[in-house]
Amino acid sequence: LEEEGKVRIGELSRRSGISVPTIKFYLRERLLPPGERTGPNQADYADGHLRRLRLIRALIELAGVPVAGVKEVLESLDSGDQTLHHRIGAVHRAIAPSRQPAEGDGTHAEAQVRALIEKRGWAVEPDAPAIGTLAETVAVLHALGQGDLAADLDFYADVVERLAEREVAAVVSRPEPDRIAESVVIGTILGERLVAALRLLAHEHVSARLLGSASVTGEA
Amino acid sequence: LEEEGKVRIGELSRRSGISVPTIKFYLRERLLPPGERTGPNQADYADGHLRRLRLIRALIELAGVPVAGVKEVLESLDSGDQTLHHRIGAVHRAIAPSRQPAEGDGTHAEAQVRALIEKRGWAVEPDAPAIGTLAETVAVLHALGQGDLAADLDFYADVVERLAEREVAAVVSRPEPDRIAESVVIGTILGERLVAALRLLAHEHVSARLLGSASVTGEA
Repeated sequence: LEEEGKVRIGELSRRSGISVPTIKFYLRERLLPPGERTGPNQADYADGHLRRLRLIRALIELAGVPVAGVKEVLESLDSGDQTLHHRIGAVHRAIAPSRQPAEGDGTHAEAQVRALIEKRGWAVEPDAPAIGTLAETVAVLHALGQGDLAADLDFYADVVERLAEREVAAVVSRPEPDRIAESVVIGTILGERLVAALRLLAHEHVSARLLGSASVTGEA
Repeated sequence: LEEEGKVRIGELSRRSGISVPTIKFYLRERLLPPGERTGPNQADYADGHLRRLRLIRALIELAGVPVAGVKEVLESLDSGDQTLHHRIGAVHRAIAPSRQPAEGDGTHAEAQVRALIEKRGWAVEPDAPAIGTLAETVAVLHALGQGDLAADLDFYADVVERLAEREVAAVVSRPEPDRIAESVVIGTILGERLVAALRLLAHEHVSARLLGSASVTGEA
């Protein structure tokens, strides 16, 4: 089978591991652009469709983005009339976790977050949804009596800036400019999962060392 | 109102912001221990109940843990017959994201993750669920053509180790040993959210700098 060739929907399903009815659902919902019509009930699909299907699957299954959110992400990716940076900003908005009304002093926490952004000179939109998520998280930590964990946001900012410098630089230096926005989406979402899983392992390791336990070893 | 005093369920609801029917549901599901009976249909609740309610709310609303998972976390927290480290390990298992069957070469990715753990000398249980989550994420990055982002897991491990050293040290040095496990749960879950939100902001900032956009500034 030739990677560059056009394929029918059955083969697209086999290659992507996504069932034909699900692919048809994505076509109806316009998550996936239509194939190239070859007859009244037939169409051919190309490599771009396969790549898009894998992206949809990662967004839904790994990042837990709802179908409506996936549509928003993909529309942002495809909107050629905006700068790359704006498209990425729209993607951030689409994947931002939904906010719950904060318990505790949300105003104070938001001021703390905005002060951090100003101090670090971060160029972020004043209405970036992550500001609200962060403020809410800080407020809840305080409400739960764990405010000291959020006291030094600068420390966390150092750490994530190191991550972002490396991740964004890797992606924008790639040779396919039309796929950079797609790469940023994938890197943002899967990178978050990667960091979270590694952080859990590091927590387990450090807690084993500090709290001690004879039965925990690195061996299988 | 005295903070240390015992209160009826209505006052517990008011203080926690959780409705009386929801509190009764948590009592039935044994997420919340029963109050101190003061009559056939009356009970008093103490500060521990309020703290536990806030923890339940954070787990469900912020961390998205299902009720069954919350029950598992709380049982692990309360199991006095295990070492603190074991209780924390059980909590990690309960909050680990559910795994989907991995697309791509999961075996290779898992070998990469286990090699990393060995190289770093991390003391983690060989069946820690985060190993599977991490391997799956690496495999999916490869399947999506973004394998280079996962090529240097050592870099990510450096970053999260720095986080974990600081976070665990802060929690275990606290003066209330019986609340350390609870603090670890909160720190693990809310810390993940804090890191994720800050990372998004750092990404926006770095991408603004590298990709450029006149309309994005740090000002409101």
